[in-house]
Amino acid sequence: MQILRVNIPGREYDIKIEKGLFDRCGDLILEIVKPCKVAVVTDSNVGPLYSQRLINSLKGSDFNPFLVTVPAGEGSKSIKMLEFLYGELLKNGMTRSDLVVALGGGVVGDLTGFCASTLLRGIPFVQIPTTLLAQVDSSVGGKVAVNLPFGKNLVGSFYQPRLVLIDPDCLDTLTDRIFCDGMAEVIKYGVILDENLFKKLENAPSRKAIMKIIDDVIYRCCELKKLVVEEDEQDLGMRMILNLGHTFGHAIEKKYNFTDYTHGEAVAAGMVMAAEYGERENITSPCTSARIRSLVTSFGLPAEVDIDKESLKDAISVDKKGKGNMVSLIIPEKIGKVIIKDTEKDNIWIQ
Amino acid sequence: MQILRVNIPGREYDIKIEKGLFDRCGDLILEIVKPCKVAVVTDSNVGPLYSQRLINSLKGSDFNPFLVTVPAGEGSKSIKMLEFLYGELLKNGMTRSDLVVALGGGVVGDLTGFCASTLLRGIPFVQIPTTLLAQVDSSVGGKVAVNLPFGKNLVGSFYQPRLVLIDPDCLDTLTDRIFCDGMAEVIKYGVILDENLFKKLENAPSRKAIMKIIDDVIYRCCELKKLVVEEDEQDLGMRMILNLGHTFGHAIEKKYNFTDYTHGEAVAAGMVMAAEYGERENITSPCTSARIRSLVTSFGLPAEVDIDKESLKDAISVDKKGKGNMVSLIIPEKIGKVIIKDTEKDNIWIQ
Repeated sequence: MQILRVNIPGREYDIKIEKGLFDRCGDLILEIVKPCKVAVVTDSNVGPLYSQRLINSLKGSDFNPFLVTVPAGEGSKSIKMLEFLYGELLKNGMTRSDLVVALGGGVVGDLTGFCASTLLRGIPFVQIPTTLLAQVDSSVGGKVAVNLPFGKNLVGSFYQPRLVLIDPDCLDTLTDRIFCDGMAEVIKYGVILDENLFKKLENAPSRKAIMKIIDDVIYRCCELKKLVVEEDEQDLGMRMILNLGHTFGHAIEKKYNFTDYTHGEAVAAGMVMAAEYGERENITSPCTSARIRSLVTSFGLPAEVDIDKESLKDAISVDKKGKGNMVSLIIPEKIGKVIIKDTEKDNIWIQ
Repeated sequence: MQILRVNIPGREYDIKIEKGLFDRCGDLILEIVKPCKVAVVTDSNVGPLYSQRLINSLKGSDFNPFLVTVPAGEGSKSIKMLEFLYGELLKNGMTRSDLVVALGGGVVGDLTGFCASTLLRGIPFVQIPTTLLAQVDSSVGGKVAVNLPFGKNLVGSFYQPRLVLIDPDCLDTLTDRIFCDGMAEVIKYGVILDENLFKKLENAPSRKAIMKIIDDVIYRCCELKKLVVEEDEQDLGMRMILNLGHTFGHAIEKKYNFTDYTHGEAVAAGMVMAAEYGERENITSPCTSARIRSLVTSFGLPAEVDIDKESLKDAISVDKKGKGNMVSLIIPEKIGKVIIKDTEKDNIWIQ
């Protein structure tokens, strides 16, 4: 088993990665908390595949689990679903010394984590991510949130999990589209921090090829994220580099009502846009956007998406990275290195 | 001006207390943040009395304020009103480098603070409490929350304000009932931590008499709360003593739909119940409940409220102080000293 320790003072926790660990989740959780009530929150896709195995494992380790299922899809990251979740947890008698487990992808993790961070002013929670996107990105680092009609992740907290359990075998049940959704974030780590990782991906440009090295890829992505989060938990400086492609990406998701494009697809196109923007502004070395374009395309991710200037401005106006009339754009200088560039919101133009 | 520094590592802030400081709020805020957009959130009672003066003061100090008003009353501490507030703040273009100001009593402070703690994962906020209850209690210490149909303050955060500005002159516009609502919390500080304060109150058993020493009373209450919060921000130990009367009090508020009794009235009766419970259990020295009863009565607060065992059990079952099937009751040993007693939920009985 590979173990990464995230060192945030007072709230340290482990990320444990191993093929086949899923059926030992109960014992692994028992190492950090006493037997208690456990709310397992999942969605309508993941639940039928994995919830019973998790419930069995928890019962086998003397926990008292119960299941709450929300509809699959970004639509569940809403205030309405949050209220539903608060109600289900309270009806089942949850207290601050119980535990909330998020079993699923980014939507379940974000919604459940925000619920856990605010219900009774905070209940311990554990992430068991089942998608590639959640395993390499959203389950690590403590950012949890729900969406508002105004935009994505506008209401949230910084709330670290007590433990993250990653079983790469869970990826086998993903569709190609959802697997590749996560690849966008994997590629992102290469672009922002690690040219070697990027080259590894260029040499394994398909799902099948990546799955042969998946343990190492997940470990490296989590390690990079951990280093960034330890440096800047509250997203005041360095952590912003994780948002490469996200300012444009969020605008894409919003324009297409969070339905036509997955998060990863929007981020893939957003990374290409950011690199092209940087090349036009002479920040980014030549061919950077072409390499990103080629790699995202090999995973079936879009390298461009039709979006007009007005939609972009609307989305940027409520971007959390905004400060007054400025927004912090993340621009690659080359593969493996990015800069944070404070830009006037009105001056962000796209081709 | 009396100044108290609350020392919570990384999130230190001042409480400033002075008669007449209200019209200098803009300048006092300018000492801690640069000119920016300021959302002033108030309610339909406080707004007509104070909002224009605050807006003028903020404009005079180069801030760019706008006003958001919610209906007065506990009903506004709801998820629905929270959504309304998120929307108003976003529509006005708030970013993380802007400021939210809560102008009002406990409801406005709790709702606004929770909104500020979660919108964009946290926007700086300042408390300007205008009721006695908010000045001595709810504006200090960073507990912010909204209610759910299941009970009070079930959704919230620990989120420290950047500054608390207290003008005791604001109390002049309170009705007797709302003034005395705050006196319940003042009396509470005497019971839990300071027999001298309690005696001072016994020697000034009316609104008129208290107002002669109000600056010192507010200062002492804030000082006591500050000491407790510095010791235990996250409510894991000592801070629980601030909940004297609140377990019973919340049950009373809930049974009467948060309308028949104010928070302070419920806490007043709750303190008497806690002392009587302690006397029956031989924890509390004789006459303690009688002294509390006499003092709360002199301020027109109820010393007893009709509540049945079932309502009490229902409310306790979702009490945040619960751990599994236990609840931490706060019981006075004598005036000025309390203990925390873990009690089985089923064993809490009342006369």
